Amino acid sequence: MKNVVVGVDIGGTNTVFGIVDKEGKVLAEGHLTTTDYPVVENFVRALASGINKMLGGQKDVALAGVGIGAPDANFHRGTIEHAPNLAWKGIVPLADLMKKELNVPVVLTNDANAAAMGEMVFGGAKNMKDFVVLTLGTGLGSGIVVDGKMVYGHTGFAGEVGHMTIVPGGRECGCGRLGCFEAYASATGLVKTVSHLLSEMRDESVLRDIPPSKLTAKQISEAAAKKDPVAVKAMEYTAEMLGYGIVNTIVFTSPEAIFLFGGLAQAGEMLFKPVREYLEKNNYVLFRDTVKILPSGISESNGAVLGAAALILNELS
Amino acid sequence: MKNVVVGVDIGGTNTVFGIVDKEGKVLAEGHLTTTDYPVVENFVRALASGINKMLGGQKDVALAGVGIGAPDANFHRGTIEHAPNLAWKGIVPLADLMKKELNVPVVLTNDANAAAMGEMVFGGAKNMKDFVVLTLGTGLGSGIVVDGKMVYGHTGFAGEVGHMTIVPGGRECGCGRLGCFEAYASATGLVKTVSHLLSEMRDESVLRDIPPSKLTAKQISEAAAKKDPVAVKAMEYTAEMLGYGIVNTIVFTSPEAIFLFGGLAQAGEMLFKPVREYLEKNNYVLFRDTVKILPSGISESNGAVLGAAALILNELS
Repeated sequence: MKNVVVGVDIGGTNTVFGIVDKEGKVLAEGHLTTTDYPVVENFVRALASGINKMLGGQKDVALAGVGIGAPDANFHRGTIEHAPNLAWKGIVPLADLMKKELNVPVVLTNDANAAAMGEMVFGGAKNMKDFVVLTLGTGLGSGIVVDGKMVYGHTGFAGEVGHMTIVPGGRECGCGRLGCFEAYASATGLVKTVSHLLSEMRDESVLRDIPPSKLTAKQISEAAAKKDPVAVKAMEYTAEMLGYGIVNTIVFTSPEAIFLFGGLAQAGEMLFKPVREYLEKNNYVLFRDTVKILPSGISESNGAVLGAAALILNELS
Repeated sequence: MKNVVVGVDIGGTNTVFGIVDKEGKVLAEGHLTTTDYPVVENFVRALASGINKMLGGQKDVALAGVGIGAPDANFHRGTIEHAPNLAWKGIVPLADLMKKELNVPVVLTNDANAAAMGEMVFGGAKNMKDFVVLTLGTGLGSGIVVDGKMVYGHTGFAGEVGHMTIVPGGRECGCGRLGCFEAYASATGLVKTVSHLLSEMRDESVLRDIPPSKLTAKQISEAAAKKDPVAVKAMEYTAEMLGYGIVNTIVFTSPEAIFLFGGLAQAGEMLFKPVREYLEKNNYVLFRDTVKILPSGISESNGAVLGAAALILNELS
């Protein structure tokens, strides 16, 4: 019998789950439509049944535990709390519900923490003790690892770097406050930056032909690759704001590396190069040349499942 | 025989050292004038001799170790590195030099980390696992404790919260960059704020009669207590900037408490009340009502020695 774990990534629309061995090989993957289950108990039953069916299709495996990444998840309590993008309102004891169904240890944390766990166990941070993962998607999530351990803090919600204020009185953030890091350095932030630049610049740009509500980070980064002047400037500004937030992040935990993960990080050197240049100029003297800015070592396609699997593997070891 | 440790606080001008038992009682204290020893080896010999003499005056004590707090100290390497306020240039292997003289374990960290250790072992953080100490003196130092452990980071210099940028393009900081937290929320920052307000406001103020180079945070806080309008406004602005930096600090490690230590913290409720009010309004939703803003539980007079003693006690335990 071979011990395996299951990693689950719960998103607002889709939930993906996979059987993962301790080398980080995904043996099988399945999914559910999260929005099909407005009642969480039904979701848990469907998920457990999907997992059991998937395990039944494998030869000689034993389930050792389940790791779950989810929005607004609390590691200490094993709960999802007041998640605006999920139908389950209030405080949902998801880890306990899953434990009852599957009778194995279940741990839960937010998706960015799971990504950081994936980086540590299977990715580029394998030999690192102090690092930070920034997930640049619709928002900006973060997972902070100090001395080989995930930082959960007193509340279990630590690592909300995306909600550090970087521009006093700046852009409205989804959290109701102004000027948060994620309002600038995320896919959403990049789109907002394009809107602003279209108002400031007279240059021709393909981005003038796309309704802002349909505009994606991918389109902008493709336009920038073709030297569209607005797109180029938008990428530069985003990189500068990302650099600014990273410099402020470094003074807290002095990481060996900052990993950039998620959609926006796919822009590659167009983003990484100016971020590194910003750091060379602006990093606090004690930390100059001590921090690597790296792309995630986990593939985008199954990163979330691997991260959740790493979370439970780390807990079991 | 009773085991004791020695705590040493090395400052630019004075060095204070004391014998401390494991209950945090200071049994004896001595000092040296740091500037009398431009050669570090002579300083180490004088310090060791002072410690030995002090131990000789005690009955039945055995020295278990020495903890040292010093500016620009590196915990990992036991070194003081390029300290602008000390005569010893370059990288000074202070822990090793002391170890050779005294033949006991010696650990070294910066003064703010030592203050945080003091808070954890002897002060208000005895039962806390996640907290931050901000030392509001000439500069703004910080010690971050996560899950019961001091955060040193990859370099050993973690916790330089005073050098988070809070005003892009703002005040010049001693570090050569602009807009650092410590340029606003420190004794020096408070004096600068008074200078600025004297240029903006027409109100009469006793602070107009003191040369800015002689003006102290104590004078300003005394004037504020007497309702001097410029001093009052300067305290309010300082509290707001402190609150701003604290809100940004919380998103990283989600502490249970922030302790304010050092000269400026002596202003008491005049500072604490507006900081708490700022947090109530501006803290990120997941952390609202989860963080206490507290005065240090360690007395100002021997706080540095106790902190350094706590550092070695923690290491030995």
